[in-house]
Amino acid sequence: MALSRYEYVKNYEIEDRCLLGCWIVVRIDGKAFRKFTDAHSYLKPNDDRGLGLMTRAAQMVMADFTDIVLAYGQSDEFSFVFHKNCKIYNRRASKLMSNVVSLFASSFVLYWPEFFDTQELQYPPSFDSRVVLYPTDETLKDYLSWRQVDCHINNLYNTCFWKLVQEKGLSPREAGDSLNNTFSDHKNELLFKEFNINYNSLPELYRKGTVIIRNTNVKKSKDLDKQTTAIQIATESSKKDKTSCSIVLYTDIIGSKFWEEHPNILK
Amino acid sequence: MALSRYEYVKNYEIEDRCLLGCWIVVRIDGKAFRKFTDAHSYLKPNDDRGLGLMTRAAQMVMADFTDIVLAYGQSDEFSFVFHKNCKIYNRRASKLMSNVVSLFASSFVLYWPEFFDTQELQYPPSFDSRVVLYPTDETLKDYLSWRQVDCHINNLYNTCFWKLVQEKGLSPREAGDSLNNTFSDHKNELLFKEFNINYNSLPELYRKGTVIIRNTNVKKSKDLDKQTTAIQIATESSKKDKTSCSIVLYTDIIGSKFWEEHPNILK
Amino acid sequence: MALSRYEYVKNYEIEDRCLLGCWIVVRIDGKAFRKFTDAHSYLKPNDDRGLGLMTRAAQMVMADFTDIVLAYGQSDEFSFVFHKNCKIYNRRASKLMSNVVSLFASSFVLYWPEFFDTQELQYPPSFDSRVVLYPTDETLKDYLSWRQVDCHINNLYNTCFWKLVQEKGLSPREAGDSLNNTFSDHKNELLFKEFNINYNSLPELYRKGTVIIRNTNVKKSKDLDKQTTAIQIATESSKKDKTSCSIVLYTDIIGSKFWEEHPNILK
Amino acid sequence: MALSRYEYVKNYEIEDRCLLGCWIVVRIDGKAFRKFTDAHSYLKPNDDRGLGLMTRAAQMVMADFTDIVLAYGQSDEFSFVFHKNCKIYNRRASKLMSNVVSLFASSFVLYWPEFFDTQELQYPPSFDSRVVLYPTDETLKDYLSWRQVDCHINNLYNTCFWKLVQEKGLSPREAGDSLNNTFSDHKNELLFKEFNINYNSLPELYRKGTVIIRNTNVKKSKDLDKQTTAIQIATESSKKDKTSCSIVLYTDIIGSKFWEEHPNILK
Repeated sequence: MALSRYEYVKNYEIEDRCLLGCWIVVRIDGKAFRKFTDAHSYLKPNDDRGLGLMTRAAQMVMADFTDIVLAYGQSDEFSFVFHKNCKIYNRRASKLMSNVVSLFASSFVLYWPEFFDTQELQYPPSFDSRVVLYPTDETLKDYLSWRQVDCHINNLYNTCFWKLVQEKGLSPREAGDSLNNTFSDHKNELLFKEFNINYNSLPELYRKGTVIIRNTNVKKSKDLDKQTTAIQIATESSKKDKTSCSIVLYTDIIGSKFWEEHPNILK
Repeated sequence: MALSRYEYVKNYEIEDRCLLGCWIVVRIDGKAFRKFTDAHSYLKPNDDRGLGLMTRAAQMVMADFTDIVLAYGQSDEFSFVFHKNCKIYNRRASKLMSNVVSLFASSFVLYWPEFFDTQELQYPPSFDSRVVLYPTDETLKDYLSWRQVDCHINNLYNTCFWKLVQEKGLSPREAGDSLNNTFSDHKNELLFKEFNINYNSLPELYRKGTVIIRNTNVKKSKDLDKQTTAIQIATESSKKDKTSCSIVLYTDIIGSKFWEEHPNILK
Repeated sequence: MALSRYEYVKNYEIEDRCLLGCWIVVRIDGKAFRKFTDAHSYLKPNDDRGLGLMTRAAQMVMADFTDIVLAYGQSDEFSFVFHKNCKIYNRRASKLMSNVVSLFASSFVLYWPEFFDTQELQYPPSFDSRVVLYPTDETLKDYLSWRQVDCHINNLYNTCFWKLVQEKGLSPREAGDSLNNTFSDHKNELLFKEFNINYNSLPELYRKGTVIIRNTNVKKSKDLDKQTTAIQIATESSKKDKTSCSIVLYTDIIGSKFWEEHPNILK
Repeated sequence: MALSRYEYVKNYEIEDRCLLGCWIVVRIDGKAFRKFTDAHSYLKPNDDRGLGLMTRAAQMVMADFTDIVLAYGQSDEFSFVFHKNCKIYNRRASKLMSNVVSLFASSFVLYWPEFFDTQELQYPPSFDSRVVLYPTDETLKDYLSWRQVDCHINNLYNTCFWKLVQEKGLSPREAGDSLNNTFSDHKNELLFKEFNINYNSLPELYRKGTVIIRNTNVKKSKDLDKQTTAIQIATESSKKDKTSCSIVLYTDIIGSKFWEEHPNILK
């Protein structure tokens, strides 16, 4: 049986190498997660179990891919930043995006029971994944700022929306109608006046999303900025190595302060 | 907070649309599965539990992506053939490869206990994924033939290798040395003379790999070629819909017979 | 002086290989040719000198690139069809499009005086170039039909437009207004009633555009379809080899007749 | 006649947008110029007519594409640097490389007689063209240094080679054999001892290649570095606008001095 007769088909593969010298962002995003969160009774607007599971899966990815310098997550998405000079997989985009997203997905399912003890996983979730290149530190930071601004805007909206539905008894449609085309000021005021909630006092996890950096970037946890909440997730047995290599923060990454405090991340 | 200030970074995304009119093959492949199968005590050279789990995961992918006309799997890889005229995700390669591979990975983990009842999953597996385009029916069939020939060659080698190790007590190195650079004839004879095995009587699952086609392509199971083994996997409750839409075959797809019997697959 | 210190920059080049097995169309297109034709007093709606020069330049391209099986031109554009299995430049799109377009441009300028004896070239023209892949004979033929239909539609419009301007004294704006949103029937009737022109009796060069095929595809010129006008451009001295390798036709390539008469083109 | 029936083929075109924020280098390169220079009796190792014509063609390109901030040429190649934030043609690589290379080629032919008054152009030359992206100022400068080092190495070699052939009567093969695998020191010494030539006193045009920048970048020609030779090519009539917008320099661009003297180029 002649292998060579068919082997020519291998030449139909097209190289998809990422441009050298650029930051490589792999962003994964839950597919149809509105349906998924409904089917699994996620608490709204934020479910700590779901957010914790996302972070755990992201830490597994960071443990396996040591070229990732930072990960940022919010809602059902996570962005992984590979160092601009990394050589992994010869920088092939397909390899990067598929290995990251499949490890994330299998971790999500494997660690599900640790976070959802009373809620069985009904069906396998899927995630999409894309590669985006940023040629400069500035554009990379702007990318991360874009995601964190998105987190803020969505969380403010969702906090209002679910308060109106859960406590005022509005239908989803009514709640949506009353919030559309309103500014942040209006929503902040609504929360304060109607629900006695100071938005800025809500957990930073909800308002800022989740930043994961390498443990080697910080000497001791007391060195961390006092205003940020550092959680070095306690892990037992074999998982210890995996998650202890990363530090989870809920902090602002839009301003320059974060980058000044962690000058080695983009080095 | 100005969303627009950062939103420009979205324009760094590059479109990766697949050429129209070409068959789109998404091939997923286990990452470091030699280590994975060792860590999970897979039987060698073939583990029915592992192969069954791969097939189950592939069926979940086929159930979700109705544009897939055929899937072919062997060892730790699976190829999914999307119809040449499909429009899903606007044919964006990233979307296709990431959604397929993440659904495969999460299914693999979710259904693990059904196949490995006494063996716990030690860590989350990952898979890579790539997209390859084939412009004609002929090149697509040659691609599938390439994978099936690969299955045959590897299985013949592995069958010999593990017999030498498991029954003759050779070290892996010794077994490898005695098989390298030998032809198929030699290996067939080795199996027959030394181990009284007629290679062609081994299960087609091992020798041919796994072909999955849509249920709608066949009217009744008795219409199926007698020489092929059709298994319409029995499924209970909610999973029924998912797997009953596909038919699993262990058959030759290199010759013209398969394609003549299933003229609708490439229509 | 260390060459190696800077040579790493070579790795920033990205491969752009065309998918195997697909017809490669390189289409070149005059840049700002409305201004160019005005500046060089082209006759409207069709200038035989300009069309002849385009064809000559295309023949030079065909002479240099023997993988081109057919070229089709109209107005200020030309499409070159490279054989689906050609290996030239390892099928790199950049190499193909740039070499074709630069040879076309330099030929255009070099042979300008042969076609425009009383009109000097005022400034160097430029052309853009693109590569489009077609996976099947059918899609390739549809591509060529698309261009020929475009030729017909534009020529019918332009013939009416310039008659109205040149013979009826309408301003360009008035002529345009009177033709916009009219059907072919209307335009044919206008030509016949107002200008006593039977559109179908106009030269096929204007109505069908220019098809160039390899000389080897036809045995003798009398074998050519009687209804097509075959012109084997007479060339002297060194240019003889260059243009005698191609045959220029003004004929329909939308119907099946052309392809039946020239079965070897797509072989 | 239904246009729409064929128009679908337009969708086979694939976008090839350059990544935002990166310097875009379009490098054109003469195809088979060894044969071309032989056929046109170029003086060896350097022909001022040929180099002047290349520069003239490059100036035409710079005049048409105002997003080009710098061009660098040597031998039969020219690199054009488009500003990293330019928006021209929506940054489509095909458009950029084809328009540049075709304008270069048509200018080369059109202005040929101005440089080669006694030598007729024998046949149309062609050039290939490619697009390479550089994400940072540093990598862009390294690219230009790479080309200038290449100019130096080739010129030193060629100067020795042609001296050996032209004055010592060596055959090309003998000359090549005696130079292969020798260091710069050896070649410098050879020129000095055998031919009484101080390599560093040869014209900078030959040793450094040609740098073209925009006129607006310098206030007055006396501001230019004294060691560089600035030639603001005198042009008559209509060509004046075209070439007066650029300044031609023969100077080192590897060291930091050039960039410090022209800080606006990469702004």
